[in-house]
Amino acid sequence: MSQPDPKRVKTDDNAPYELIYWPTIPGRGEFVRLLFEEAGVPYSDVAQDAEKGFAAVKSLISTDNTGDDNNPPALAPPALRHGDLLISQTPNIMLYVAPKIGLAPKEGSGLYHLNEIVLTIFDGLVNECHDTHHPIATSLYYDDQKEEAVKKSKYFIKDRLPKYFSYMQRVLDAKTSGDGPWLYGDSLTYADLVLFQVSNILSVSYSFHLKLLIIFQAVDGNKFAFPKSIEALEKSGKYDAVFKLYQAVKERPNISKYLQSDRRTPYAEGVWRHYPELEED
Amino acid sequence: MSQPDPKRVKTDDNAPYELIYWPTIPGRGEFVRLLFEEAGVPYSDVAQDAEKGFAAVKSLISTDNTGDDNNPPALAPPALRHGDLLISQTPNIMLYVAPKIGLAPKEGSGLYHLNEIVLTIFDGLVNECHDTHHPIATSLYYDDQKEEAVKKSKYFIKDRLPKYFSYMQRVLDAKTSGDGPWLYGDSLTYADLVLFQVSNILSVSYSFHLKLLIIFQAVDGNKFAFPKSIEALEKSGKYDAVFKLYQAVKERPNISKYLQSDRRTPYAEGVWRHYPELEED
Repeated sequence: MSQPDPKRVKTDDNAPYELIYWPTIPGRGEFVRLLFEEAGVPYSDVAQDAEKGFAAVKSLISTDNTGDDNNPPALAPPALRHGDLLISQTPNIMLYVAPKIGLAPKEGSGLYHLNEIVLTIFDGLVNECHDTHHPIATSLYYDDQKEEAVKKSKYFIKDRLPKYFSYMQRVLDAKTSGDGPWLYGDSLTYADLVLFQVSNILSVSYSFHLKLLIIFQAVDGNKFAFPKSIEALEKSGKYDAVFKLYQAVKERPNISKYLQSDRRTPYAEGVWRHYPELEED
Repeated sequence: MSQPDPKRVKTDDNAPYELIYWPTIPGRGEFVRLLFEEAGVPYSDVAQDAEKGFAAVKSLISTDNTGDDNNPPALAPPALRHGDLLISQTPNIMLYVAPKIGLAPKEGSGLYHLNEIVLTIFDGLVNECHDTHHPIATSLYYDDQKEEAVKKSKYFIKDRLPKYFSYMQRVLDAKTSGDGPWLYGDSLTYADLVLFQVSNILSVSYSFHLKLLIIFQAVDGNKFAFPKSIEALEKSGKYDAVFKLYQAVKERPNISKYLQSDRRTPYAEGVWRHYPELEED
């Protein structure tokens, strides 16, 4: 049993946090932003400057990138620089940051429960959700896979949305959810911010609405669209704890301020080029 | 900034490790098994008894499952019980286990690099790969989405396989890969076992071959199949470090013994019912 050198990368917890993500779209970068905003911890965000932001992301994802002295190459944004350390993969970034800024336990096994909850929500409501409009290939245009997108979205709405909402509701019904509206323990953790953001994407995102409207206009003459599905889930009364948690996060003082600030990137209004999912990988 | 109670779940590092996974298929459970086998650490595996194994998984994934006093409910297997702790999500289980059994650093930021590498390989070569034969819905039969599976598999082989092989090669070319054939640092970590297993699935799995053969027979009269794609990647000479690492893991004394043991579940030979991906969720 051998051990890599754990001291390879030195980080100073007081080093500044620097987010690297695509400008103009909230996308997966938004999950990371919400942590810093809720905790009131300063961070820099290269996406605030479109020119610098695009350059930083392009350099990050270049196939010539073989990392640096301290870090392996990243495949896709978001990435977070903290001192000499550069890490990628959204759930991994949150796992690293959350215990340092009071949004997860610093030690003990609770962090593995939080990571499990976050990975599960990501599987269904970020990754599968993305694939509803790119079921065949991210390298193909939407128009070239529209027919398949219609089919996949129908199943997503019918089978997968309720499956994942039921999962979140059960986590909230569990003893480990503790007092208060939170997924795990007696106070807000980063998993709650993830639930908030996926629900927000599903029910508020204009680009998402627009996309689904287009998909269902194509088949059902606009009788059916995504926001209505979320409304139906809410009205069913089966997932009350999920919607209550969504509201509780929305009303957090720091989150509320952030949502009204110009740091919150609006969901893109274009149909194609502004899909976060299209520009990510 | 509030903190959940980090001492909620007590675990004793000497408690036995118990894997809960579907019997008869290697699937995602196999990633966890490889860690214990390489480290020579005993674990129990409920899949070894088909009847008990199916019952354990069915109870785990029941929609009535709201967890227990110490643990939130899991959505899908594999799960790992360790003392009072029960955790799910394959990369999460490995993240928990690896530092305890000498396959990752116990502290420091190296663990976040390993988690990043593993999550990235999983994104492409486990999850996307699964979707090649279920591009529309996991709840539909393969025959009902065969046409879409053919389209998706073509793009997967053309665009995605080289993308992820190039990523793994770049991680191996990076300074952080250190001496020896390993992805990160100077000695074998659990990320190397993950690379081994995905390459093994892609190039050895009979069910995977069979599936792809069927797909391409349908369109190309068997001129093209998946094992040939992997062979082409190998012959290109562009990913030598990846194939060298695969071989190095295969030759590890404990892994070599394990692969020849009856603890190694053979890749299922049925076309449909034995797809690991079909039975997982």
